[in-house]
Amino acid sequence: MRTHRPSRRTFTKTVAGLAAAGVPATASSPGYAAEGSGSVSPASPSLEGSSADVARALLLLDRNDHPLTPVYKSVLLGGGLPRAGGSPKKVLVVGAGAAGLAAAHLLNDAGHEVTVIEANGNRAGGRIKTFRTGGHEKAEQPFADPKQYAEAGAMRIPDTHPLVTGLIDQLGLKRRRFHLTDVDRDSKPVGRTWLYVNGLRVRRSDYAKNPKAMNRSFGIPRHLWHVPSAQILDSVLDPVRDEFSVAGPDGRRVDKPLAECLAGWTRVVEQFGEWSMYRFLSEHAGLDHRTIELLGTLENLTSRLPLSFLHSFVDASLIHPQTRFFEIDGGTAVLADALLARVRHLVRFNCRATRIAYGSETPAGKGVWVDTVSESDGGPVRREQFTADVAIITVPFSGLRQLPFSPRLSYGKRRAIIEMHYDAATKVLLEFSRRWWEWTEKDWKRELELVRPGLYAAYRDGKAPTDGSLLGSHPSVPEGWLTDAQRVQYAARRSALRDQPEASASIGGGSLSDNSNRFMFHPSHPVPGSRGGVILASYSWSDDALRWDCLDDDARYPHALRGLQDVYGQRIEVFYTGAGRTQSWVRDPYAYGEAAVLLPGQHTALLPHLTSTEGPLHFAGDHTSLKPAWIEGALESAVRTALEVHHT
Amino acid sequence: MRTHRPSRRTFTKTVAGLAAAGVPATASSPGYAAEGSGSVSPASPSLEGSSADVARALLLLDRNDHPLTPVYKSVLLGGGLPRAGGSPKKVLVVGAGAAGLAAAHLLNDAGHEVTVIEANGNRAGGRIKTFRTGGHEKAEQPFADPKQYAEAGAMRIPDTHPLVTGLIDQLGLKRRRFHLTDVDRDSKPVGRTWLYVNGLRVRRSDYAKNPKAMNRSFGIPRHLWHVPSAQILDSVLDPVRDEFSVAGPDGRRVDKPLAECLAGWTRVVEQFGEWSMYRFLSEHAGLDHRTIELLGTLENLTSRLPLSFLHSFVDASLIHPQTRFFEIDGGTAVLADALLARVRHLVRFNCRATRIAYGSETPAGKGVWVDTVSESDGGPVRREQFTADVAIITVPFSGLRQLPFSPRLSYGKRRAIIEMHYDAATKVLLEFSRRWWEWTEKDWKRELELVRPGLYAAYRDGKAPTDGSLLGSHPSVPEGWLTDAQRVQYAARRSALRDQPEASASIGGGSLSDNSNRFMFHPSHPVPGSRGGVILASYSWSDDALRWDCLDDDARYPHALRGLQDVYGQRIEVFYTGAGRTQSWVRDPYAYGEAAVLLPGQHTALLPHLTSTEGPLHFAGDHTSLKPAWIEGALESAVRTALEVHHT
Repeated sequence: MRTHRPSRRTFTKTVAGLAAAGVPATASSPGYAAEGSGSVSPASPSLEGSSADVARALLLLDRNDHPLTPVYKSVLLGGGLPRAGGSPKKVLVVGAGAAGLAAAHLLNDAGHEVTVIEANGNRAGGRIKTFRTGGHEKAEQPFADPKQYAEAGAMRIPDTHPLVTGLIDQLGLKRRRFHLTDVDRDSKPVGRTWLYVNGLRVRRSDYAKNPKAMNRSFGIPRHLWHVPSAQILDSVLDPVRDEFSVAGPDGRRVDKPLAECLAGWTRVVEQFGEWSMYRFLSEHAGLDHRTIELLGTLENLTSRLPLSFLHSFVDASLIHPQTRFFEIDGGTAVLADALLARVRHLVRFNCRATRIAYGSETPAGKGVWVDTVSESDGGPVRREQFTADVAIITVPFSGLRQLPFSPRLSYGKRRAIIEMHYDAATKVLLEFSRRWWEWTEKDWKRELELVRPGLYAAYRDGKAPTDGSLLGSHPSVPEGWLTDAQRVQYAARRSALRDQPEASASIGGGSLSDNSNRFMFHPSHPVPGSRGGVILASYSWSDDALRWDCLDDDARYPHALRGLQDVYGQRIEVFYTGAGRTQSWVRDPYAYGEAAVLLPGQHTALLPHLTSTEGPLHFAGDHTSLKPAWIEGALESAVRTALEVHHT
Repeated sequence: MRTHRPSRRTFTKTVAGLAAAGVPATASSPGYAAEGSGSVSPASPSLEGSSADVARALLLLDRNDHPLTPVYKSVLLGGGLPRAGGSPKKVLVVGAGAAGLAAAHLLNDAGHEVTVIEANGNRAGGRIKTFRTGGHEKAEQPFADPKQYAEAGAMRIPDTHPLVTGLIDQLGLKRRRFHLTDVDRDSKPVGRTWLYVNGLRVRRSDYAKNPKAMNRSFGIPRHLWHVPSAQILDSVLDPVRDEFSVAGPDGRRVDKPLAECLAGWTRVVEQFGEWSMYRFLSEHAGLDHRTIELLGTLENLTSRLPLSFLHSFVDASLIHPQTRFFEIDGGTAVLADALLARVRHLVRFNCRATRIAYGSETPAGKGVWVDTVSESDGGPVRREQFTADVAIITVPFSGLRQLPFSPRLSYGKRRAIIEMHYDAATKVLLEFSRRWWEWTEKDWKRELELVRPGLYAAYRDGKAPTDGSLLGSHPSVPEGWLTDAQRVQYAARRSALRDQPEASASIGGGSLSDNSNRFMFHPSHPVPGSRGGVILASYSWSDDALRWDCLDDDARYPHALRGLQDVYGQRIEVFYTGAGRTQSWVRDPYAYGEAAVLLPGQHTALLPHLTSTEGPLHFAGDHTSLKPAWIEGALESAVRTALEVHHT
C-alpha cells in the first residue's frame, strides 16, 4: 500500500497554566499524540467530551466547576487582561465580527501587536448587520425614508446575557426593550397580533384563552383541545427543566444550587444528548404526529425537529415570554460601530483568508502565515500575506471547511470542521410609509379615505380591486421605489383571500403563520422623525429559509407582502413603499449560515474540539461557545481566547 | 375569538376506479371530510400512512399487492394509455422535467388536449441537465473544447430501473456503462483510484486488501482495524436486508417471494421508519463515534447521518459495487431532447407558475386556473394565465411552498409541502486538455517534458514551483479561458503538499477525500474527437454542498483544482484549461435542491399526501415516488398521473 507520509505535527503541547486565568475545562488541546513520521497514531476514543463537560460548558464553569462569568465580566468590562501575562506578541485576528473586534481590543490594550483581517470590503460586525443609511460601512440608503433601518442579523439581546448588556452600557450605547410580544401604549403585553394557521386567524391572547378551534384544525387528540401550545410544550419540557431548576410560585424558574444544577444538566445531556427534538417529542413525550405539527408550527420547532434536542431545549427556555429582551437604539450595528472604533487602526478590510500555515510550514518555521485575497471591492483580485506569532481564528467552522491549513489540524478539529452543522436563516424586510399595525379601525378609515373616498368600506367588504392597482397608492408613499417588475409579480400572486381582519392596534411583537412567511415582527419603537416603519415580514429557518432563495428580489418582496396580507388583510398594500431588503445568511459568503445548530450527538462529540488550540492557532466565535447565534457567546469566546493568547 | 371563515372545499371526492388501471395504494385522496362553512373538521390522525403502505410504495405494489412495474412498463413502453379512458380533457402540465414531458406525451397520444408550462426560458429536463454546446436549449460552449460536455445533474442510471432503461432503448438512444469504480482497458475493475483521508493516500484496491492504516487513522477499535469500511457497513445492514432478501453464494442478494418480501420491508419500516442513519449506526449497530466517522467518510454517509435511515439504506443498496450503471451517449440531456421532441409543440417556456386556483376559486367556477410570470429571458416580466380541466403538477414540493393555492389544499398535502425535506447537492466540473487520469508514468513523462525538459522529475521530487506559474502551461491548453482572477485565487491557495503519487492509470470511477471535494469522478468514456476530458472534481451533498456556495466561480474552480491536487499531485495543474462549470442545486430557482431526502418519520407521515389528488390537481415528479432523485421515480409518477387523468 502506498501511503502519504504525514507532516510532523509541530505543536502538540497543551496550553498550560490557564485554569487560574479563566479558561474553561475544554479549552486546552485534547492532547493527541504527535503523528510520528511514517505512522499515524490513532486518536483515542476516550477523548470525546463527557456529558459533564457539556453541562459545564452550558453553565460556563471552569474545570474546577467555578463560574467563569465573573472572570469574563471583570476582563471585558473591568480592567482588561490581567497585568501578569506573557510577553507582548504579534497577534493576527481573522474576522472582524464581535468576537474578533472584542479580542483585538483586549489584546491591543494589554500591549500586544494586533492586526485584524476581514473579508468584507467595508463592513465589520459579521452577523451583526443593520440595513441603514451611513454607519461605519457608509451604506447606501436601503429604504425610501433615509432615517429607516432594520436588522439583517442580530436583533434582540436577552437580559440574561451579562457580557453583551454590560458592554453596551459600558460603551455608552442606549438600549431599550425589544418586545417579543406586542404591547399597548403603556408597554403592557396585549397579544393582539395574529396566529394565521390552517386558514384560521386568531389573536394570540384569544388563542391562549381558547385554543380549541386552532388545536382541532391540526387534528390533535381531544384531551389536548383546550391546552394552548405553549402549555403543551412546557408540560413536556418542564420535567427536564426540573433536573436543574425549580419553578417559583409565579412560574419563573430559578436554578438549583450550582452543584445540583450541574449534576442535573449532566443528567439531561446524558439522557438526551444523542436525541433530536423530533425524537424527544414523539418517543419521550409520547406526542402523536399531529400534536408535534401543532407545536412545530406555533412554537417554532418544525424546521429544527431533526436537529439536536439540546439546542432547541435551550433556545425554547431563552426565547420565552419570561425573558426580557433589549435592542440597541439606532440598530445593532451601532454596537459594531463602537467595537470597530476602538480598534479601527488595526483592521484590514477586503482580506479573505485563503490558506493558513503555522509552525514548520511557515516560511519562518514558526508562528502563523496567512495568505489572503481581495475580492470585495470589484477590483482585480490581489494577494496579501500576513504573519504573526499567534492567531485567533473567528471564521465559522463552516467557512474553515474551504480554508486549507498546513500542517493538517488535529483529527478532532478536522472532524468538528467537517461535521458541525450550520443552519440557514432568512429575513425579508418590507418598508411601509405608515405604521398601520399600530392603528385602530378609526385610523384606518381616516387614512384609506385619503387614497379615495369609500376605500375603507371597499376593503372591509372585499370589494377593492385585487389586480394590484392600489399597491403603494397612499399619498404618503414616495415615488421611485416600486418597480414595474414588482407590480407584475404582485399582480400574478393575487390572493383569493378577501376578508378583512380588525386592526391589530398594538406595538411591537408580531404574528405567525404556517404560510411561507412564518414569523413576522413589528418594530418595537418608532424611528424618530419617521411616520413609517419596516416590518420583518418573514423570519424563517432551515428548510423554510432555503425555500425563499428561489425568488429574486422583484418576486420576493411582493411574495412576502402577499404573505403579510394573508394575516393582516389586503388593505396594507396601499402603504408599501416598494423598498424591501432581504438577507439569506446561508448565501452570505463569509457567514455560511445563521449559526451552528448542532445535530443530535454533536454536543458531546464535538465540544472538546471547538475551543482546543492547535499550536499557535486559537479559535473564537459564537460557534465555539454553547450560545451559538448569540453575541454573548461571541464575547465569551473573545475573552477566553484573549486570555489564552495573553498567558501563552 | 375571531376566526377566518374558511372557503368551502369544492373537491373532496376520492378518485374512484383507478385500482384496476394501475394506480398505487396511496394515490387516492386521503378522504378528509370537507371543511364546512364556519367550522373546521379535524383531520383524522389515523390517516397517516402505515408501515405496510410505505413498504408497498417502496416495492411499487398496488393496494392489492400486485406489482405495478409491469403495468407501468406496458403503458410507457408499449401501447400507451388504455383505450378505455374518460372523455378527452384539457390538461395543463406544470413543469417540463422528465415526469412532465412523459405524462404530456402519454396524454397527448391518448387524445387529450395538453399544454406544458415550464419556468426555464429555453431548457426542458429539470434536474436532467448537461453542460454542452448546443442541444435543444442551444447552450453556449461551456468548455474550451466545444465537443466536451459534462453532467450538472442526473449522470448514472442503474440497470435495476426498467422504465428509464426501457425508454432510452425505445427512443433509440445509445447507452453504455457508467463505471462507478475504475476499470482497465478491458473494462475489468481495478480500483486504482484513491482514497485520500486523514492525510493518508491509499488506492481503493489496496484499502480493500489492507485497511489497517486508514482505519487506525480514525481511531476505531482494534477489532475493526482489518475490516474494510464497506464490509463494516454491510455487516450492520445485512441483517436488515435479510428481512426481505437472501444473499446468494456470490454475495448477490435476491428478493424473497413477494409476500415475504413485503412483510419483511414492512417490519423494516416499522422498526426503523422513525430512525436517522446516525441513530441506527450508534444505537442499533452499537458502533462507536469514530467508526461512524469512518463509515461516514468512506461510505458517503456523513452528510446524511441526521436524515432518514430508510433513505440512506435504500441508496446504499442501490449505489453498490453489485449494481451496474449506464450513461447516455452524448449526455443525459439527450434524453431530455428526445422527451421534448415528442411534445415540443405543447410546451410553453418562460412561464413560471405564481398562483394556482381550482374549482370554485377559478373564474369559471371549475377546473384549473394558473397564473404565471415570465422571468427567464431578461426582458420585462409579463403575466399569462392558463386554464384547463385538470392539471399535473410536477414542481418539487419545496417549490410549492412559495406557490399559493386557492382554495387551500388539504391539511395533509399542506403539511407535506411544508415539511418534506430537500437536500442540497453541488457539483464542480473542471476541464483538462488531456485525460491524465488514464495515464501511466510513461505518459506523464512524455507530456510533462513537452512543457519543459526536466519538469517530470521536478514534480516527482517536489521541486516544481508552487506559485501557480505552471497552471495551464501544457501546449495543449488553449488560450483564453484562464482568467487573471483564477490565477491569483489559485496562487493564494497553494498547498504545502509536495509529494507525487503514482499515476492512477485507469478509466472511469473516481477518488474520494475528506477534503471539501469529497467525491471525484472520472469520465467513463472519451468524447470522440477530443483528447481532453472533464472531471467531476467535487460532488457533495447537504452541509458539504452548501459550503461551496461561499466561493464565487473565480475562487471555486481553483479551490476545486487544489482539492484534486491533494489526491492526484501537483502536476495535473499544467492541463487545466481554465474552464469550469458548477451546479448548486439548492440555488437553482426551479429545483430548490437536489431531491427530496426525507427526515426520520417522514416516510410514514407524508406518504399518503405525496400522490393524493386535490380535486382536479394531480401531483407527479420523482418526489412523489419513493425513488427520489432518480429518473425512474419521475417516470413512475408520469405514468401514474397520466392514468389518473385519463380515467377521471
